[in-house]
Amino acid sequence: MIPSELNESTALLLNAHPQASTDQQACQQASIDRSGYIPESFADGVIFAQSIDDVVLAMSLAHEHGVKIVPRGAGTGLAAGSCAQAGEVVLDLSRMNQILDIDPVEQLAAVQPGVLNAEVNRAAGEHELFYAPDPASTAICSIGGNIATNAGGMWCAKYGVTRESVLSLLVVLPDGQLLRTGRRTIKGVAGYDMNALLIGSEGTLGIVVEAVLRLRPKPRFTSTMVAYFADENTAAQAASAVIAARLQPSVLELMDGKSLRAIDAALGTEHQQRGGALLLAQTDGFGAQLEMQALTQTIAPLASHVELAENEEEAHALIEARRQAIPSMELLGTVSICDIGVPRNRLAEAFAGLQRIEAERGVEIFTIAHAADGNLHPIIVVPEGQSITTGAAKLALADMFYLAKELGGTLTGEHGIGLLKQDWLAEEIGETSLQLQRRLRAVFDPQGILNPGKAI
Amino acid sequence: MIPSELNESTALLLNAHPQASTDQQACQQASIDRSGYIPESFADGVIFAQSIDDVVLAMSLAHEHGVKIVPRGAGTGLAAGSCAQAGEVVLDLSRMNQILDIDPVEQLAAVQPGVLNAEVNRAAGEHELFYAPDPASTAICSIGGNIATNAGGMWCAKYGVTRESVLSLLVVLPDGQLLRTGRRTIKGVAGYDMNALLIGSEGTLGIVVEAVLRLRPKPRFTSTMVAYFADENTAAQAASAVIAARLQPSVLELMDGKSLRAIDAALGTEHQQRGGALLLAQTDGFGAQLEMQALTQTIAPLASHVELAENEEEAHALIEARRQAIPSMELLGTVSICDIGVPRNRLAEAFAGLQRIEAERGVEIFTIAHAADGNLHPIIVVPEGQSITTGAAKLALADMFYLAKELGGTLTGEHGIGLLKQDWLAEEIGETSLQLQRRLRAVFDPQGILNPGKAI
Repeated sequence: MIPSELNESTALLLNAHPQASTDQQACQQASIDRSGYIPESFADGVIFAQSIDDVVLAMSLAHEHGVKIVPRGAGTGLAAGSCAQAGEVVLDLSRMNQILDIDPVEQLAAVQPGVLNAEVNRAAGEHELFYAPDPASTAICSIGGNIATNAGGMWCAKYGVTRESVLSLLVVLPDGQLLRTGRRTIKGVAGYDMNALLIGSEGTLGIVVEAVLRLRPKPRFTSTMVAYFADENTAAQAASAVIAARLQPSVLELMDGKSLRAIDAALGTEHQQRGGALLLAQTDGFGAQLEMQALTQTIAPLASHVELAENEEEAHALIEARRQAIPSMELLGTVSICDIGVPRNRLAEAFAGLQRIEAERGVEIFTIAHAADGNLHPIIVVPEGQSITTGAAKLALADMFYLAKELGGTLTGEHGIGLLKQDWLAEEIGETSLQLQRRLRAVFDPQGILNPGKAI
Repeated sequence: MIPSELNESTALLLNAHPQASTDQQACQQASIDRSGYIPESFADGVIFAQSIDDVVLAMSLAHEHGVKIVPRGAGTGLAAGSCAQAGEVVLDLSRMNQILDIDPVEQLAAVQPGVLNAEVNRAAGEHELFYAPDPASTAICSIGGNIATNAGGMWCAKYGVTRESVLSLLVVLPDGQLLRTGRRTIKGVAGYDMNALLIGSEGTLGIVVEAVLRLRPKPRFTSTMVAYFADENTAAQAASAVIAARLQPSVLELMDGKSLRAIDAALGTEHQQRGGALLLAQTDGFGAQLEMQALTQTIAPLASHVELAENEEEAHALIEARRQAIPSMELLGTVSICDIGVPRNRLAEAFAGLQRIEAERGVEIFTIAHAADGNLHPIIVVPEGQSITTGAAKLALADMFYLAKELGGTLTGEHGIGLLKQDWLAEEIGETSLQLQRRLRAVFDPQGILNPGKAI
């Protein structure tokens, strides 16, 4: 039974789709993500797709009745890219969560969009393979969402982001047609790169219902280290020195002093006793140990303390601290995880700028960074109940954009524009590009029914 | 002075542009590439652009007068993607050949489109860096052309193709507007991936006038080997075994017996005495030697003879044989270098299929392959003076497409569709994708003036 206050077109769609729900709680849950953005109203309904046919039917009905559809994976987005409001219907892909096939010889996985990132890695691991893009949210984020945002992660330093690990997509277009992009071969240039156009398009061009992922050989050897430094500036200098020394760590993560304090408070660890900032590095491959030696020599003159993992267990413990950073901050209030990118040798300036912003705006900012890519996560934390997307927090986000811009960088390295970062998009990419991209979007979606108001 | 027989609109453009030439020989040279395709007529004129302003002026005039423009780099394309005919004007970018800036700390190079691939690598080498996409034509092909085709090469096995090494482009759109795509940071997801849309678009969406390339640290250590096998089937099995063993060579090239014969004939080498097919492998990084040991152990049971380079000079000699393969074949007649891609464990089937095609069509086919990517170069050779793009050669090309398709592969791994492969594009990518891509093209070029009739 569809509530009578819904508008006619969403009611038509929700009545006609067997997987539709208008349950209040479901609508509310499906209308928010992990960005901290709270919409003023919630979606009219949710379709819990279980099959490609369910998605085709949803888009065909939406196309026919002009209903706005918000695609959604696991809802872990950080830019409000899958938030929804009244007059919209959420198309939830989380139940399409199967690994369809792993080809260990070709090193490919065919998956549904709702499968979790960590689940792909677990299954790949059984064949001594891994899936490289590993957002911090690996345990809870879905491959479909990763594709929508061109997600990155720790291993991207060496192995590239989602775009470099997706070979082919099966996509439902806004009018319900099916489109296959790419191919199952490593290389291929027949026609435009439709994979890349879809990847990172934040659910505005089509809905991914199947993806062929490229897996990579699990490194036979790894070497893992953490080094402590007096402060962020010194740690950032060390990270830049690693790049300048032509080394290629598979992981190079920086955590500032405030992050260490949050982790220590949450987990009872004693990072702060060893330094005011931390660098986590991993090398891999047949030369992992030798490369780590070179790396350690490079940073030693700057470090106050260095710990090399003696075995797998110790390595896991060192990496786990990094994975616990964001959960530790979440204990302190409401968080907004930003993701500016800067040239890799300007990390120190970025940290200094963030400290200025923190002081000027009166908000707490904890910063961790994928240092090898120049991709920083300044994490704004406000007291529980206070808005993270307006007021001082929003002003701080604006300041971060201008900081990144001044350093030759970008507003968003791996989270996307969503709703949260719309204000600065034109300034970053330019009006010519924005208008062109909007015309490209209209080719896919002339009615403007797919994730309206998001991304570009 | 513009010849009177030209059509009015090309004459208007050529008269108005200070860098235009209607010299017969220039027009003829600018109308063909290295595909072997001979157009029935030649371009009305050539504009030898020396600056961004020259390109902007050319496209503004073309836009105003509806003149068809064929962009051209070094003219080394293999799919007739830059061939031109009467009624068209060639926009030659080869004189815009400067390296504008190398940033050794950020590991970036800003270059003009006409700079040669090898020149970028030479300049990068001075900073212990390299540019990964290295087509066999590195000494004579331009970066602009590499971008137009999303070119690959030997090192792509480990480092990816052109798309993975371009961070930002400055593009002149068909109406003369300037568009900047991407950014100078390693990561960034603000807006759609316009870099990737332009890369591989075969000069149909815009004209690249500047590119920011990602350089990579030159490996401190490399190890190089050639192994000989009884026949192509065994060599292909060995290549597949390397992939299956989870090894990651930076180079893995296969040459068939006929190629060895051509090289021996041209260079006086004695490859054939050691085997009926050859595999060239290189590993790199801190574990280069260890990884090569593992690789050699993997293929040893299948090989008849293995040679490990003892020093840089020997390694260079081993690789040089591969680089001389195509020049050696060019001594035997007119060549057409095809580039099908197949799943990596179906290489042996691909070689068997190519031998069938050779026998059935009565054309000579020599095959070399980027084995780690499953990307084969079957090289059709016909006697001098015989057409390489019609008759038996064209039938063989068709057969190759269906062979690749049957094996789950693609018609073109790295050369593009151009004019030569139009017949099979729809069958490969599907009618839905083709129509969609044509509508995307029209967003950039509603008049259809940029490289008409090519690619999609």
